[in-house]
Amino acid sequence: MPALDFWFDFASSYSYPAVMRIAPLAATVSVTVRFRPFLLGPIFKAQGWNTSPFNLYPAKNRYMWRDLERLCANLSLPFRQPDTFPQPSLLAARIALVGLAENWGEEFCRAVFRAEFGEAGRIDDTATISRLLTRFGVDPGDVLAKAQSDPIKARLREETRDAQRLGIFGAPSFVTEDRELFWGNDRLEQALAWAVDG
Amino acid sequence: MPALDFWFDFASSYSYPAVMRIAPLAATVSVTVRFRPFLLGPIFKAQGWNTSPFNLYPAKNRYMWRDLERLCANLSLPFRQPDTFPQPSLLAARIALVGLAENWGEEFCRAVFRAEFGEAGRIDDTATISRLLTRFGVDPGDVLAKAQSDPIKARLREETRDAQRLGIFGAPSFVTEDRELFWGNDRLEQALAWAVDG
Repeated sequence: MPALDFWFDFASSYSYPAVMRIAPLAATVSVTVRFRPFLLGPIFKAQGWNTSPFNLYPAKNRYMWRDLERLCANLSLPFRQPDTFPQPSLLAARIALVGLAENWGEEFCRAVFRAEFGEAGRIDDTATISRLLTRFGVDPGDVLAKAQSDPIKARLREETRDAQRLGIFGAPSFVTEDRELFWGNDRLEQALAWAVDG
Repeated sequence: MPALDFWFDFASSYSYPAVMRIAPLAATVSVTVRFRPFLLGPIFKAQGWNTSPFNLYPAKNRYMWRDLERLCANLSLPFRQPDTFPQPSLLAARIALVGLAENWGEEFCRAVFRAEFGEAGRIDDTATISRLLTRFGVDPGDVLAKAQSDPIKARLREETRDAQRLGIFGAPSFVTEDRELFWGNDRLEQALAWAVDG
């Protein structure tokens, strides 16, 4: 089966519809999806930004939230604008790497995005994350310890470096096995078609 | 018939597929399209940019050209990356305003974008523009004189101010009669659906 790498940051608003859509769409065309959480922060910094570009440009920021609200309505996804944007995504990304090496990673990713953009919740405190983790039959304390271990910290740094090497500059991004890059929730269908047909 | 305002800048790369797609798509759903050429330059300047954001961020720039090439291939549109980007669009925008008040404006807009992004041509010199104009049975000298007249110059400044007032920060953008804003060639279908159903 052809594979597609799905690169996303838990802070990224447009990664929310993408994470909710990708699994069923990929199944339709028989493409294997690899979830690749990474951190946009270091990549934005290399471009001279200290926060999300949306926060730097008010007109673009207002538009983005309205656009996301419309998209979610079309997809019947819950939407509520969080008070803080972007939220620190380091903790969620490290835990996702733990979960993706076990069998609850993808479901965890969807739960985090739903909490963040569907319910305007915080995703950067251990209490909220621990509550989410209890749904997956794992011990939150164990998982949090693993997430703060050196191998997982190093892994996330490597993933972020890989993203940068692939030319990724935003999220969500999709990369096919022949290294074709697609950026944005809008490009998901096109990326899947490329994965199938080249 | 419901109406949709189509805001674009002749310098804008993603306005190329939008200008080629909009008329037949709008006809399908019985929406009247108003072509609204404007200048992104003053709006970018207000955001602190002195050129296209694509030129400021090399990874984004590389991606944009590859993405546009793929989009054009999917749409069977000719594509050739121009040597200069962005090109000064003032002359083409003023002439488009002349043509839109007569009956050759939309065809002129498509011809300019095809010359620019389909054939890597220049759109900022009067020789090229004059050659395009001869196709429409108008006298290029007369049209160029009208385009440099005070009423047309003032009109383009007003259009650009209107765009800014509507919250437009990029091109192409689409605005419905109830002032719903959609940004990007990707949002054309959604904008048309909104124009029809609200």
